[in-house]
Amino acid sequence: MLQSKLFYKIDKNKSADVESVSHDLLTRAGYVDQLMAGVYSFLPLGFLVLKNIEKIIRENMVDSPMDGQEIVMPSLTPKENWVKTNRWDNFDVLFKLKGAGDKDVALAPTHEEVVVPLAKKNVFSYKDLPFSLFQFQNKFRNELRAKSGILRTREFLMKDLYSFHANQEDLDKYYEKAIKVYLNIFKQCGIGKLTYRTLASGGSFSKYSDEFQTITDSGEDIIYICQKCKVAVNKEIKAENSKCPMCGSDNFEEKKAVEVGNIFKLSTKFSEPFDLKYTDKDGTDKLVIMGCYGIGLGRLMGTIVEVNHDERGIIWPKEIAPFLVHIIELKSENKKIKATALKIYQDLQKQGVKVLYDDRTDKSAGEKFAEADLIGIPYRVVISEKTLAKNSVELKERSKSVVKLIKINQLLKSLK
Amino acid sequence: MLQSKLFYKIDKNKSADVESVSHDLLTRAGYVDQLMAGVYSFLPLGFLVLKNIEKIIRENMVDSPMDGQEIVMPSLTPKENWVKTNRWDNFDVLFKLKGAGDKDVALAPTHEEVVVPLAKKNVFSYKDLPFSLFQFQNKFRNELRAKSGILRTREFLMKDLYSFHANQEDLDKYYEKAIKVYLNIFKQCGIGKLTYRTLASGGSFSKYSDEFQTITDSGEDIIYICQKCKVAVNKEIKAENSKCPMCGSDNFEEKKAVEVGNIFKLSTKFSEPFDLKYTDKDGTDKLVIMGCYGIGLGRLMGTIVEVNHDERGIIWPKEIAPFLVHIIELKSENKKIKATALKIYQDLQKQGVKVLYDDRTDKSAGEKFAEADLIGIPYRVVISEKTLAKNSVELKERSKSVVKLIKINQLLKSLK
Repeated sequence: MLQSKLFYKIDKNKSADVESVSHDLLTRAGYVDQLMAGVYSFLPLGFLVLKNIEKIIRENMVDSPMDGQEIVMPSLTPKENWVKTNRWDNFDVLFKLKGAGDKDVALAPTHEEVVVPLAKKNVFSYKDLPFSLFQFQNKFRNELRAKSGILRTREFLMKDLYSFHANQEDLDKYYEKAIKVYLNIFKQCGIGKLTYRTLASGGSFSKYSDEFQTITDSGEDIIYICQKCKVAVNKEIKAENSKCPMCGSDNFEEKKAVEVGNIFKLSTKFSEPFDLKYTDKDGTDKLVIMGCYGIGLGRLMGTIVEVNHDERGIIWPKEIAPFLVHIIELKSENKKIKATALKIYQDLQKQGVKVLYDDRTDKSAGEKFAEADLIGIPYRVVISEKTLAKNSVELKERSKSVVKLIKINQLLKSLK
Repeated sequence: MLQSKLFYKIDKNKSADVESVSHDLLTRAGYVDQLMAGVYSFLPLGFLVLKNIEKIIRENMVDSPMDGQEIVMPSLTPKENWVKTNRWDNFDVLFKLKGAGDKDVALAPTHEEVVVPLAKKNVFSYKDLPFSLFQFQNKFRNELRAKSGILRTREFLMKDLYSFHANQEDLDKYYEKAIKVYLNIFKQCGIGKLTYRTLASGGSFSKYSDEFQTITDSGEDIIYICQKCKVAVNKEIKAENSKCPMCGSDNFEEKKAVEVGNIFKLSTKFSEPFDLKYTDKDGTDKLVIMGCYGIGLGRLMGTIVEVNHDERGIIWPKEIAPFLVHIIELKSENKKIKATALKIYQDLQKQGVKVLYDDRTDKSAGEKFAEADLIGIPYRVVISEKTLAKNSVELKERSKSVVKLIKINQLLKSLK
């Protein structure tokens, strides 16, 4: 992508009213744009990041023991379904509206009320189980206070998977696999070392649910990490247990954290109101046992920035970055510099490397460097008169301070 | 994909209350599921089709003269923006609701009210123009009467692109390119020969807009195709012109058709209320000139089925089909048949071919064939005792009646 063509505008000034570091950086660097409180557009740079996250999650849903089949369910949902689960009046962030014919409709904040009646149409026998369905779909939650930029919004893209099982044992096995898959997702997103499985209350249908919490000082949650087994517990569980429910240790470390995912054993909580049953081998009808597994993509993107930045800007992990390489030409009026930069840009792209090329002629070196640091692409490649004299470029990783002079024909090899 | 694992259920019986052929076939074959009037889920098979259509459209937006940058804008939009364009009270299908703090919000049925204020933040000089932004995003329209299955729904996925220009001439040039790109999209989706550029009223800001109309007896629209230049006009334009506005011919053919896309020259219709201006070379401030370009993905999917089916089911074009090959094993109890079918399935997948493999052991040959015809995958490959004796499979194209015996090691070559 040519930077001169990219739809974005850098705002050099820190906002006075900063809700969170990620909000400030993502807004100033042109990744997202706030339309109203808790409602955002994802601009070209932000869209690329979102797609990278989506790709990692999708691969982990499909090519993994989670074995998910992808679908899309709608956002408009009929009141009846929410009445059946007793959530029409009790889901406090439910957006309600009137459809044609004065019909009461809710904007789905989660999709159990859609996926369970859908499953009911296709599940009859034990042979139809287990299976799991997932989607990437917008969720709507009328939060009283939207805050922290894209960490807590009223409209957000979520991956939600629902698993359907013949019995509790099958759910339990699947759930353990899901924990591993989730940890792998956060690892691939570059926040694996900071992200802990965290036991939380399971509600009336299960002893525990599991949150995935990423340690950061900007976190709203407090978690207690067991120093022996490295599983954490949240505040509620800690209050009830002086020892780690997993290993019995009482050695905890307290940390602030952001929740980046959560999974629940729903058991029969939703199959019961919709009477979702199957006929077992012995001919008896039994309720289907369910689990659900969510990740908010915007929240995850914001969290990645919360834990990967410095005072100058974002430092994207390679797998998440909108581009891998940021080429910067200095003194664009020098035709040889421009031609060389363009050739490197084209050659790298031919090799499948994603490149942002700062081809702008009206910016100083200082401005270009400052913007590059704010945007946070992993590799910065600078072409100047000085480097060209040695048939070289300057290569710098965003996460490191060392600058290396690299022969142009060695550049591709240097980008591991 | 193993058919035994696929989340779908075939309904053999035609619905008595058929809204349209595509609705009947897509519902019975397990591509979509209706949640409420005008609101659908896309099941695994339908999701794959939707993704294929999305891919074709995306490539045509990015790698083409349309040169679009992809973004995502939200569905929740503030009342103020709709008041500014005078559409809060005048857009008859606008879904309205209350957000936190009793704030009036609309669910976006189109995104001019979001993209124009967004552009205003980033456009200052003539140097910032032209550019174009597009998204795939759900639209919400509170249609009084939702009908014809996925052809007219209250919630639907749309590709909408908005182009921004310094002057009318630049828009005009871009618009002509967009027409070619659109025709290419419909060609790639397998409905090129039946789809006509159709002149329609342009409203107060342009003489004409352009619809893309696909000829089908189930169409709600009437178009008049000029037999000389092959551009069509809609009813309104025909009433005003006895001759073709493009070439002057008066030789028209009347046809029923479905609208699969439309593009408009917006000129200053939206830049004016939002005061979207740029500073031109001569230092004067001028209003930005705009165009918009839409395609509804569900509508397109339904139309492809309307024009590609027979009495037994869907006949997908290869580029759109959820899978290219449908392997059917007969007499699954014969271990050699099962092993051979599995091997062919795995080998084709290794070659990058998308395969649905009917591995079910409890279905008769008749049931399997009937389902395969309904689902409509381009190539059917049958493995039976008879074919196995000759180291062969039976290959049949869904669109043809001839059945060929093909040596197993020649199969890949036979799938052009």
